[in-house]
Formats: sequence, structure tokens, C-alpha cells
Amino acid sequence: MSFGQRLRAVLDVRGGLCVGIDPHAFLLEEWALGDDAAGLREFGLRVVDAASDRVGIVKPQVAFFERHGSAGLAALEDVLAAARDAGLLVIADAKRGDIGSTFDAYASAWLTPGSPFEADALTVSTYLGIGSVSGPRAIALGSGKGLFVLAATSNTEGASLQTATTASGSTVAGSIVEEVHTWNAEETGLGSIGLVLGATLDLDAFGIDPAHLESTPVLAPGFGHQGARIADLRRLYGNAAPNVIVSASRSILAAGPSGIAAAIESQAAEVSEALAA
Amino acid sequence: MSFGQRLRAVLDVRGGLCVGIDPHAFLLEEWALGDDAAGLREFGLRVVDAASDRVGIVKPQVAFFERHGSAGLAALEDVLAAARDAGLLVIADAKRGDIGSTFDAYASAWLTPGSPFEADALTVSTYLGIGSVSGPRAIALGSGKGLFVLAATSNTEGASLQTATTASGSTVAGSIVEEVHTWNAEETGLGSIGLVLGATLDLDAFGIDPAHLESTPVLAPGFGHQGARIADLRRLYGNAAPNVIVSASRSILAAGPSGIAAAIESQAAEVSEALAA
Repeated sequence: MSFGQRLRAVLDVRGGLCVGIDPHAFLLEEWALGDDAAGLREFGLRVVDAASDRVGIVKPQVAFFERHGSAGLAALEDVLAAARDAGLLVIADAKRGDIGSTFDAYASAWLTPGSPFEADALTVSTYLGIGSVSGPRAIALGSGKGLFVLAATSNTEGASLQTATTASGSTVAGSIVEEVHTWNAEETGLGSIGLVLGATLDLDAFGIDPAHLESTPVLAPGFGHQGARIADLRRLYGNAAPNVIVSASRSILAAGPSGIAAAIESQAAEVSEALAA
Repeated sequence: MSFGQRLRAVLDVRGGLCVGIDPHAFLLEEWALGDDAAGLREFGLRVVDAASDRVGIVKPQVAFFERHGSAGLAALEDVLAAARDAGLLVIADAKRGDIGSTFDAYASAWLTPGSPFEADALTVSTYLGIGSVSGPRAIALGSGKGLFVLAATSNTEGASLQTATTASGSTVAGSIVEEVHTWNAEETGLGSIGLVLGATLDLDAFGIDPAHLESTPVLAPGFGHQGARIADLRRLYGNAAPNVIVSASRSILAAGPSGIAAAIESQAAEVSEALAA
């Protein structure tokens, strides 16, 4: 099965909420864990445990594991394995990007079955052009994995670049969305190459055509602390709303080890209600 | 001392050649090493050994270590430590990028004195906007470290995005170069925030003002296999030529363990001659 097919099944059966695994130093402290590899491992395993019967998708933030070097990344390997063993779909949020064989090496690292960092999908960043993603795309498709390409992001510093006009007349973000749409049209049903589109944004102002999202998975940060409301899911993403993965991290993790299960259940219900409305 | 000051001294005394440490699978095979963590470690240590009395700068390509998971990255830690112990300036070519505290976590991972991945500088990628680099910049400056921000790259897929026109009328690449110029003007002498500018490019066609490069380090891939000639260094970069780090990987590594020392010496001499001319 392709990643898009697997994701479609997860979204339909287990809903659109994705729990972030972001072991910020301040959260480790709030959770009474050490700011070290053992603390990272314990934090990650507890979030996986809380998520496993309540949602279908988790997203570890690689930067916080990398901060502790190879020992931190060995902890991430254990968290990735535990999440996949629990039947969760795992999006490694690493925002990798490069060209040619170097970008292929990143894709292999995260998307090869049996590799230490195996995840189901990887976030990628494309200052080097959407064309640079074609090698990683082939690697992903070849092993039933997926990618999420940054397109329009919820940070204010991103708009200048992402709304810049290319020689063809489209925006940078719009041209990425269009290329990914073309790729996904080659698959049946939901495609395997997703986009990151911040929920706080006006997609029209970024030059994004909603018709280009219909068979594309959307990873959507920006709910909660950043201000977007889950209840607005249909208004924000239109016909693509059923393809949206609602990414929530701090609003869930800040509930602490004793409150995380309830926080996940409450937000998962909000997502279901927003789509049922 | 700032990174810019340290780099200036290295460029003046040891020259502008930077030896890439890119353990491609095919190179490991050519070097009769295993495609595993032990092979990566041995490859990296041999390149460091060959580089240490011949040049001042090395640049490990992180993707090839990441391909082997945390064990590959533990090998990278040993290579980074050996290079720094040998007095080499180390640029970790990881092309990291994110926003806010997440990007800060990447900067901390690679630029904190005493951290497992400690390097002297880190390459970063800015689809999320040059403003997203301000946190990592503060971290770098606070510990005498540097960054190299992708601006205009030598891959053909990059031009569409990098030459797109922002609302202010400048190109994406040009606006990054200008912002970095402003940052470096706050330091004395060579600044600590460098740019990646491919040697195969016409900087003018990317909307880059050469006056913005005068106190900015330039990491320049594109020589050798990709077609740029070291002898053209002054023609390509004008007054900024003395700030240019000539990055060479395959053309050196393909010489194999028995030929690498001679390949480094020959290219280092070419760089010196190009600048003396």
C-alpha cells in the first residue's frame, strides 16, 4: 500500500489529530525528566503510550533529539520503533533538504524499511527548489513512504520568500503546491506527497489554488497557541479538509504526564466534530 | 575570537581550500571500507589525517552519516572531534532549518562548545525566511561560531525560487545576501555569518550585489565536476575572492586513500595561485 492509501485509512478510522513529540527543555523539566538522552527517551515513550489508543499519527520533532547528539538520536530510534510497533503512523519532522545524492541519503535515512530512523513520512524543506525533491519522492514511493514539503508556513518571517513571484508568474508557495498536485495525480486516491500549510494563513494570499489540494495530504501546524481554531477546519481548507492532519504539540504536551491522555481525547474529538459539521 | 576572525586567520595562513568529507556509498567501496558506521568513521578519520597539515578547513556532509542512524552519527562525532583536535576549522554541512525554538535547538546541537556534534560553523537553509535565522545567529555569535546560509546554489532546480521577486523588488537570493551583509556590518572585519554561493552561477542574474559580499564569508561549491574553474576565482567573486572557501569533495575523495594527499596539495596550490594572480 502507498503512504497516501495508508494515511487515508488512518484519517478515516482514527481521525485527523497528530500528536507532536517535542521534548523542549522546559517540558522535560515540567515532566520531571532529565534534559538528557534518558529523559528524551522516557518523554517520547510516554507520549507514544498516551497517543496509541487515541489517535493515529505522531510527529517527533527531530531537532530536540539532535540537541543531545548521537545519544539523543539513539533515544529517537527507540521512540520511532515504539510508535510504529503501536500501529501509529510516524511523521519524522526533520525538515531535511539538499540536492542529488545528498538529499537521497537523507530520504534513505528516514524512509528505508529496516533503517534505524525508519518513519512513515519525512518533512522536507526546499530552498533548493521543488525539483530537488524528485529523488526523495522516488525513494518514498518505492517503499510505500511519504514526504511533507514545506509550502506556506505559519511563521511571519516566511511570507516574503513564500509569496515571491517566480518567472512563470506564480508564487513560490503556489508553484510548489502545483508541482506536488501534478505528482499526486499520478497516484490513485490520496497522494503520498503532502504539504505543510500553516492553519493561520490565508492560502489565497500565498497564491495557492484550493483545487490543487484535493488529492494532497496537508500537515497543518498553527492550531492552539498560534491562534487557528480547529472548529474552522472546513473554512480554512475547503474541500481538502478531510486530507488535513491537525498537528498539535504544546497544547497537548503542556498538560503534563497526568493530563496528556485527556488533552489528546479532547482535541481528537474537536477535530472529528469540525469535520462532521 | 569570533568565527569571522578565526576564519580570516585560517584563510590568510592556510589558504582557501576546504576538503569535503562525503562518504558516499560508492566512495566507501572504492576505499575498500564497509558501508556501515565503522566504514564511515575510518573514511572520515583518514580524510582528516590527509587534510590536517595541508589545508585549514574541512566540511563533513552530515547526510551520509545520518544514513546509518545514530551509529553513523556517533562516527561523525569522532570525526568532528578528530578534525577539531587537529586544528582544522569544521563546517558541518547539515543544511538545517526551522523556526523559533526548534531552529535554536539545531543551532545548539551543532554550535554549543562541548556538545557531541560541536563544529565551528553550520550550513542552514531558509525556506522559512531569513528572519528565521536570527535565533541561530545569536547562538552562533554567543559562542564564537558561524553559520553559512544557502543563497544561490549551483543546482539547476534552485534558480526558480532563488531568483523569484519579493514584494520589496529584490530577488529571494539578493534579499538574503543583503540581510546577511547588514548583520556582518555589526562585526569588525570578516563577519561570522557566511553565504553559500555556487561557483557555476552568474551572481548578477541572481540579483546579488557584489558590494554586499565584502565582509561576508562565502562557501563556494561548484568547482571541479560541476564545471567552475578555481583559476577564475577573482573573476567569479570580485573583491570578495579573499573571503571565498573553495569547497572540493569528489575531485579530492575520488583520488582514493593513496592519492588524496597529493590531490589536496595540488588543489590547495591552485587556490593560492588564483588569489595571488
